[in-house]
Amino acid sequence: MKVGDLGEFALIEFIADIVGKPSGRDLILGIGDDASIWCTEQATQLGTTDTLVQNVHFTLDTATWRDLGWKALAINISDIAAMGGEPCYALVSLALPSVTDVESIVEFYRGMVELARKFDVDICGGNISSAPVVVINVSVIGKASDIILRRSAALPGDQIAVTGYLGQAAAGRKMLQSRLKFDSETTAFLRAAHLRPYPRVAEGQILVQHGVKAAIDISDGLLSDLSHICKASRVEARVQLDGLPIHPMVKAAFEKESVGLALSGGEDYELLFTAKREIAEQIKGLMLTPVTVIGEIIRGEPGQVTLYNERGRPVEWGKRGWEHFKTLG
Amino acid sequence: MKVGDLGEFALIEFIADIVGKPSGRDLILGIGDDASIWCTEQATQLGTTDTLVQNVHFTLDTATWRDLGWKALAINISDIAAMGGEPCYALVSLALPSVTDVESIVEFYRGMVELARKFDVDICGGNISSAPVVVINVSVIGKASDIILRRSAALPGDQIAVTGYLGQAAAGRKMLQSRLKFDSETTAFLRAAHLRPYPRVAEGQILVQHGVKAAIDISDGLLSDLSHICKASRVEARVQLDGLPIHPMVKAAFEKESVGLALSGGEDYELLFTAKREIAEQIKGLMLTPVTVIGEIIRGEPGQVTLYNERGRPVEWGKRGWEHFKTLG
Repeated sequence: MKVGDLGEFALIEFIADIVGKPSGRDLILGIGDDASIWCTEQATQLGTTDTLVQNVHFTLDTATWRDLGWKALAINISDIAAMGGEPCYALVSLALPSVTDVESIVEFYRGMVELARKFDVDICGGNISSAPVVVINVSVIGKASDIILRRSAALPGDQIAVTGYLGQAAAGRKMLQSRLKFDSETTAFLRAAHLRPYPRVAEGQILVQHGVKAAIDISDGLLSDLSHICKASRVEARVQLDGLPIHPMVKAAFEKESVGLALSGGEDYELLFTAKREIAEQIKGLMLTPVTVIGEIIRGEPGQVTLYNERGRPVEWGKRGWEHFKTLG
Repeated sequence: MKVGDLGEFALIEFIADIVGKPSGRDLILGIGDDASIWCTEQATQLGTTDTLVQNVHFTLDTATWRDLGWKALAINISDIAAMGGEPCYALVSLALPSVTDVESIVEFYRGMVELARKFDVDICGGNISSAPVVVINVSVIGKASDIILRRSAALPGDQIAVTGYLGQAAAGRKMLQSRLKFDSETTAFLRAAHLRPYPRVAEGQILVQHGVKAAIDISDGLLSDLSHICKASRVEARVQLDGLPIHPMVKAAFEKESVGLALSGGEDYELLFTAKREIAEQIKGLMLTPVTVIGEIIRGEPGQVTLYNERGRPVEWGKRGWEHFKTLG
């Protein structure tokens, strides 16, 4: 059955069934009225919104609807994680061609619920409308302690560090777009890296609890996102090219391209943070996720990121990362 | 200059300038980081999200970008008003073709800021991405007292009432789409009704303060939205066709069509509520906006809305209202 046969209102009832009853935390009213209602104690709250557009951010050739449900929520939870917060509520807007199968929307919500349960997020409302292409918008409301990770808090002398590995999401996108063939383990790893990012909420909490002040999630790409931190903090960054954490499977599958993917590929949704050396060292020991120091913050040109090779020489690098509307040079 | 020449990040800085600094209430961090930050006291909060899609909800032939900025925020504030809440924060996602003029986006935000200032709403964050057509998504977070207006609280014996007039938004859409010519006063009135809806926040507050429990905003159309209340409340509604509040300018411009526009046109963003007779009477005297009793709630078929003519006879009515994906019969 197509959504055009079912209609908007029946579709909303379908979705409410999949999403299920609220977790019971503080949500008073979920899907089905003009707005959702929740209670909150005195708190610092976080709000973020992000969009996936068909044939811009994804294609239905390479992503399943279940993947899209997961990813659309994950990229928003990642923004909450990058502030050191915990996600609580999600509002979901779907704009869809009327020929979309109802089963696709069921799968979409199953993927989203799968991730929402892992992070105790209530999908509490949303909107459905018709559109010529699929446009998915999710807004997430979260909460935080008094300390919040910001782009603007990097200081000269800070180490620059990242959680996890870089470049595998872009490697996965490339594999799927160009229909590259790898062994099944590599294929599964790269596919998940691109379509099933896992937001670093616990890691963001550890950063906050141990005195880190500056962070961002890597959505546009390391160079671009580090530049955002440097611009907001009015500092410069030095990055050691040979120190980038690139997963062995990405190195094996993409050889020399892998450094470029790690620098500019984007969508890794790892946390990039800066901290005093002793804090960075301490955090390495606290996280299950690997943490790699990749450079340091210096006084200098605000927003500038300079790459250095293993011999300590600066290296030119053209591509910065993903930016909407800009053709990447 | 096109947004494709300016690029995403410069465009965000542009927007941050137009939106300006936060109102100072409780917003700690607005546009420019991974998420917005605000403080809240212990509170009941409301969250809603709504979308405008080019060539589905609007066309750039009939709406200016400034209108779109106003309307995209207004329809969300209206959802908060329909719960009896006050709007506080807005997150704005724009998906745009790269050939969009930067000046258009400036105008869009000017229109949105114009309305935001009237309701003390902080535009605190958002997202920009490329897309084949314009898709505008806004999420609004609001707050409420302990009493909240719900669709599910209508009771048999309640009077059914609406604020303002019905059908003029659809009349305006029809005038613009069909390039109908009227005198300048009528043209301006109908244009504003379609493109500049004014959310009934103060009216929603009055409803809450005087013991009203059930309300909805009229976005899909009177019949459709009243049916939503009746379905959620498991009651039936009787509506007197000759009692519908239709503005004299709509009656004059659209004659016999005007009743159909009032019943099914949608997008009036007036409040539809139910209340005991004495409360409804009291509210009529309290609001500056006209309030009209149009019928009553009865026990019966849940979701059913029956229309009666001036002789007290039931009337068949085909069209219900706006529903995405459904062809209206």
